[in-house]
Amino acid sequence: MFRLDELVARLGGELVGDGALVVRRVATLDQAGEGDLAFLANPKYLSRLKSSRAAAVIVGHKARDAVTDRPRIVADDPYLYYAQVASVFNPPPPPRPGVHPLAAVSSPVPASVQIDAGAVVEADVEIGDDVVIGAGCSIGQGVRIGAGTRLAPRVVVYAGSVIGRDCIVHSGAVIGSDGFGFAREQNGRWIKIPQMGRVVIGDDVEIGANTTIDRGALDDTVIGRGAKLDNQIQIAHNVQIGEDTAIAGCVGIAGSTTIGARCMIAGGVGIAGHLTIADDVVVSAATVVVKSIHRPGVYTSTLPLQAHADWVKNFSHLRHLDALAERVRALEQEAQRLPDKNSDQTPG
Amino acid sequence: MFRLDELVARLGGELVGDGALVVRRVATLDQAGEGDLAFLANPKYLSRLKSSRAAAVIVGHKARDAVTDRPRIVADDPYLYYAQVASVFNPPPPPRPGVHPLAAVSSPVPASVQIDAGAVVEADVEIGDDVVIGAGCSIGQGVRIGAGTRLAPRVVVYAGSVIGRDCIVHSGAVIGSDGFGFAREQNGRWIKIPQMGRVVIGDDVEIGANTTIDRGALDDTVIGRGAKLDNQIQIAHNVQIGEDTAIAGCVGIAGSTTIGARCMIAGGVGIAGHLTIADDVVVSAATVVVKSIHRPGVYTSTLPLQAHADWVKNFSHLRHLDALAERVRALEQEAQRLPDKNSDQTPG
Amino acid sequence: MFRLDELVARLGGELVGDGALVVRRVATLDQAGEGDLAFLANPKYLSRLKSSRAAAVIVGHKARDAVTDRPRIVADDPYLYYAQVASVFNPPPPPRPGVHPLAAVSSPVPASVQIDAGAVVEADVEIGDDVVIGAGCSIGQGVRIGAGTRLAPRVVVYAGSVIGRDCIVHSGAVIGSDGFGFAREQNGRWIKIPQMGRVVIGDDVEIGANTTIDRGALDDTVIGRGAKLDNQIQIAHNVQIGEDTAIAGCVGIAGSTTIGARCMIAGGVGIAGHLTIADDVVVSAATVVVKSIHRPGVYTSTLPLQAHADWVKNFSHLRHLDALAERVRALEQEAQRLPDKNSDQTPG
Repeated sequence: MFRLDELVARLGGELVGDGALVVRRVATLDQAGEGDLAFLANPKYLSRLKSSRAAAVIVGHKARDAVTDRPRIVADDPYLYYAQVASVFNPPPPPRPGVHPLAAVSSPVPASVQIDAGAVVEADVEIGDDVVIGAGCSIGQGVRIGAGTRLAPRVVVYAGSVIGRDCIVHSGAVIGSDGFGFAREQNGRWIKIPQMGRVVIGDDVEIGANTTIDRGALDDTVIGRGAKLDNQIQIAHNVQIGEDTAIAGCVGIAGSTTIGARCMIAGGVGIAGHLTIADDVVVSAATVVVKSIHRPGVYTSTLPLQAHADWVKNFSHLRHLDALAERVRALEQEAQRLPDKNSDQTPG
Repeated sequence: MFRLDELVARLGGELVGDGALVVRRVATLDQAGEGDLAFLANPKYLSRLKSSRAAAVIVGHKARDAVTDRPRIVADDPYLYYAQVASVFNPPPPPRPGVHPLAAVSSPVPASVQIDAGAVVEADVEIGDDVVIGAGCSIGQGVRIGAGTRLAPRVVVYAGSVIGRDCIVHSGAVIGSDGFGFAREQNGRWIKIPQMGRVVIGDDVEIGANTTIDRGALDDTVIGRGAKLDNQIQIAHNVQIGEDTAIAGCVGIAGSTTIGARCMIAGGVGIAGHLTIADDVVVSAATVVVKSIHRPGVYTSTLPLQAHADWVKNFSHLRHLDALAERVRALEQEAQRLPDKNSDQTPG
Repeated sequence: MFRLDELVARLGGELVGDGALVVRRVATLDQAGEGDLAFLANPKYLSRLKSSRAAAVIVGHKARDAVTDRPRIVADDPYLYYAQVASVFNPPPPPRPGVHPLAAVSSPVPASVQIDAGAVVEADVEIGDDVVIGAGCSIGQGVRIGAGTRLAPRVVVYAGSVIGRDCIVHSGAVIGSDGFGFAREQNGRWIKIPQMGRVVIGDDVEIGANTTIDRGALDDTVIGRGAKLDNQIQIAHNVQIGEDTAIAGCVGIAGSTTIGARCMIAGGVGIAGHLTIADDVVVSAATVVVKSIHRPGVYTSTLPLQAHADWVKNFSHLRHLDALAERVRALEQEAQRLPDKNSDQTPG
């Protein structure tokens, strides 16, 4: 529970109304009740603001006086302010220091570290203060994990991987598995190429559930500081991801591709190997990237969905687009040879 | 082993022939041998019925007398009947009650519950009768799991999640991980938004291997009764899935989308966030849904595959469709201005 | 550390220069320093060869004398030779025989086998010599695992599955989970069809992190000898994959599809169910396969990506391709009816 003036003292913003009001949690406009602090991030929900039972609201400058019957915090970016307030109300639980008797730990760890039941920590591992290793995690030999990082249950970190400070890794994530590297013999059989690089993850990175990040073949796979990766993302060997780049769920990035800083890659995108994506590129959902992108901007190849009967009619032509284009060319040439449409055709 | 008349007494259908025949298992028409009960679900396999060595067969009304040399069970829906018979022959193994000494269980559990080695059950967890918690599962604080639900090895259920009765959750599934929610600072850095909602799963739901279901940000993520989810599906925060909806593998559903009841979503589909999909919608494989769908029906955007050389020719035009359409428009205008094709052009 | 002439004696190739030179590891041309052996697999990096600080290089016949200031190994296929050398330098670590006290093993295992902490091996399991079962793996009843196979931490193998010799299975992989099989009742509810087949995996197969392979419904799901599967692949029930077929990350293959030998399936491909793909087929990244492919060759349906504004212009026409084609047909018919362009239109 916080007083509004405590929140403003801590996070900034302008307080309008009774700063002594105590709020107990943040909530959506629809859901908010007595004692709740709601927020208006999108002006199109203005009507919900008016009907909301929230005790106080976070609004932008334009909506400063859209409601006047209760206290407001006016912020430059109400959504960002909400994120900050929500973190004040819901800090992550502090580590419960200690190593569970059913964990198998072969490296010395600081007293502040929490290691849960079923976790395995191999030799030569370096773990920083206040790290949490969830139940059933497996931490390979020589791994380094920075202070304040939290691994949810059942994360696997292969030998030699490096994870920065204050990272969050969700359950089922696999870090440092072998890259998919094989050479082909004449007879079609595949010879495995040992994957000797590492995965190196910067500070303040979040990695989603069941996301996989392969180690490099010779060089490292690198995830830059502040990058945010959603669930079920596949990062192949030797990929490099720039700082503060955010990648949504189900994205696959093939080997040796470099992605710049502050990119936003939407869900289901596939990115081919050996490409370079510039800083500040946005890729729309389900787009397939098969060429490098050298300039910031939004890129898309999403297909429009249709009722199935319409799709059958329209998409069949895709197989014959070249023929259609050729027919249009032929018609144009024919039109060229016809008498000029503006000349007088009436015979004299 | 069951007599045919026992099966019909239990499951219905019409028995034609010797009901005293004993069958030992169900099998495909091709695979069936002595003592096996096969089924004809698709009329196009009628010739296989005739050559099958099955001792007895399940057929539809039309195929009632397609073979007359062995007993038949005539059913309205032979495939459904096969499913029911197969369940009679292959019931799930009963739980082996007890907590393995290598499990770490911090909540009281009913005597009928099976908890295998390496499983971790945190405090304040409520588990119903006959629940099976497989090896290496991790059940977070305050989770509720209904009677008869079975978790295969290595399922993670984050704190606060709710799972109904008689559910099946396959290995590697992660339930209740944080939704992908961040607010962006001016400098491009991301501020994590605490994910405080839950995942709430109804009764009789099946969840496939390595599927991930994120908890809600403020409200809950909800999976309705009877929904069936295949492997490697990603369900983002605040998604709602209706009752009896079936979703095939590798589908991704972005945040806050609501899907109706009895939908069938084929493999590899991607569904954008904040959409509403009506009841009884069918989405074809690999289709990308970027708009709400308000009416039942089949929807598709799958691309036709081609030999690569044809694809190079045809798909290059996709980048210039607008120009092609413009050229067709120009030709049409030109055609308009030409003398009417039906008039007599012969000069008088 | 190896002398060049030792490597050539072991792996073949032609040695040019001082065979007594000792190299300590393999490295990329850019990364290589003193004591390193680099390789030139792609002629377009010839300039990097010249500037490389590598002590020795592996080159093809054409690049035999592209540098003459250091020893070379001349090989038919420098990339394949590099793979072989890298394996000589980096053999997998030998198993550390023994069963960890925090493992729960209910079957007899050979003395040479390594079973790590948190692993669970049920009854009636047959494990070959030198097998490694990583931390937290779960091996179900009746599983068979051939000699020399290595399971990374947290692999799940369901009851009855068979894995060949010398396989590698990466973390989070799930082998033998139930196929997605249900029959639908009139009321829209789904009846589970028991999945009674097995997963059978040949020798020398590699399976990537978080890949899932479902057991068959009645028959088995089969992965042929030498097949290589990358991360996050979904193989549905009753799929058959031919020998030496390689499948990149994020591919989904629906039920009962058969894929031939020596195929190469690129990342993000989706393959529908009940199809047959011939031997030696190559499918390009993100292609959707909805028909059987009967002949070797390269097949593609990848969409060209565009800047978003161009995409909006061009892709909107996709919904109206049928109408566009109809308009072109109308123009052609009109052109037919016009006087012949080559006839003398000048009135007499």
